[in-house]
Amino acid sequence: MTKSEHFDAIGFDADDTLWFSEDSFRHNENRFVDLVSPYAPAGIDIKSALVATERVNIGTYGYGVKSFGLSAVEAAITITNGTVPVDVLQEILRGVREHLTEPVRLFAGVADVLSKVAQTHRVVLITKGDLVHQTRKVETSGLAHLFNHVEIVLEKDPATYRRVLLSLNIDPHHFCMVGNSLHSDIMPVLAIGGFGAYVPYEILWELDQSESVPTADDRFVEIAKLADFPDWLASISR
Amino acid sequence: MTKSEHFDAIGFDADDTLWFSEDSFRHNENRFVDLVSPYAPAGIDIKSALVATERVNIGTYGYGVKSFGLSAVEAAITITNGTVPVDVLQEILRGVREHLTEPVRLFAGVADVLSKVAQTHRVVLITKGDLVHQTRKVETSGLAHLFNHVEIVLEKDPATYRRVLLSLNIDPHHFCMVGNSLHSDIMPVLAIGGFGAYVPYEILWELDQSESVPTADDRFVEIAKLADFPDWLASISR
Repeated sequence: MTKSEHFDAIGFDADDTLWFSEDSFRHNENRFVDLVSPYAPAGIDIKSALVATERVNIGTYGYGVKSFGLSAVEAAITITNGTVPVDVLQEILRGVREHLTEPVRLFAGVADVLSKVAQTHRVVLITKGDLVHQTRKVETSGLAHLFNHVEIVLEKDPATYRRVLLSLNIDPHHFCMVGNSLHSDIMPVLAIGGFGAYVPYEILWELDQSESVPTADDRFVEIAKLADFPDWLASISR
Repeated sequence: MTKSEHFDAIGFDADDTLWFSEDSFRHNENRFVDLVSPYAPAGIDIKSALVATERVNIGTYGYGVKSFGLSAVEAAITITNGTVPVDVLQEILRGVREHLTEPVRLFAGVADVLSKVAQTHRVVLITKGDLVHQTRKVETSGLAHLFNHVEIVLEKDPATYRRVLLSLNIDPHHFCMVGNSLHSDIMPVLAIGGFGAYVPYEILWELDQSESVPTADDRFVEIAKLADFPDWLASISR
């Protein structure tokens, strides 16, 4: 990026950018495999069947833990040809409830990063998922006061970012989105003329994978860890 | 209300104000009772147990069809002491999917009402529930072009209305909310200084009942049917 660029606002993704998220889904997926395996025919790839069920249902259910729960109950029944005991289904529902109510675990240094950025820029949180669960996480994170605005969206595509930025009176050309998903946080913002700071997290949901990687571009940067973002922002705003 | 009042914006609730909603929940509840009854001990009030499960879960799951689905699977298992066959649970999940994908059925004359109001006022849709399902309904309703803004919220309380109106730059004192629930659409708007036009629908969800009814007030009106709203609005704006 060129040093002359200035930003009116910085957008942050939430899940796996500010706090752990995907590892709880992985935990519940593994728990699902353990629970369902004893009742599945030999040779079934249980994990793949679960993910495929989620993929089929995403248009109807959308993202989030409740959608995972409904897909998991459905998959447990179909994978086992209806032989799964109901106490296994109860255990799946218990996992859903635990997932929805577990405490937010912030990444190291997140509050410090947001505090620094908030001193110089408008800060907006843009996250997709379930209204209830995402709101609970934002409110209990202890970070809510650091966001000028929180937007929970259905899908992170260019049209959605355009709509959100318009409603907040933010010019996309002076907007930088920070997140762990090229597919959801970076590519669509680049597509509307904005900037993307990509901070990879070690695990990424199958349905959030991007086939394409941005070409070297003065509106794209990859940053090893979120704690490095304020220094990068300061260097570019100078 | 006094004749001198003018409104900057008119808010509409969606479910059971513009289109049918509660009857599909009732249909799925009745279907649940029919499906689960053969496996429940004698004397169990199945419908009450289902509603109670929903009530217990509302803080964790929130409103909407997916929440209903998760509560229904849980209730079917607990009501039957785990003896419910899995094909009954599959049938419950099928009902959830049908509910989420069923076509929107508008109340008679709704498009006409919104068109008339939109000629003279900003029109905003304020609805609570699931982001995926409510968005699908708004988009497929054929009414989306008549709304200046659509807001899908977690809870309809005074703080939420205050936040939404502030973000839209609407003075609560010049705002009128139209809806079928005293609890969700009328009382909280009256509480922040706005106006409420109550249009009752014949069925109302147990969890949306209001204990209190507004006293005779110049900021509250009850209208028999939505089709009468434009005439009332014209009479008061004159």
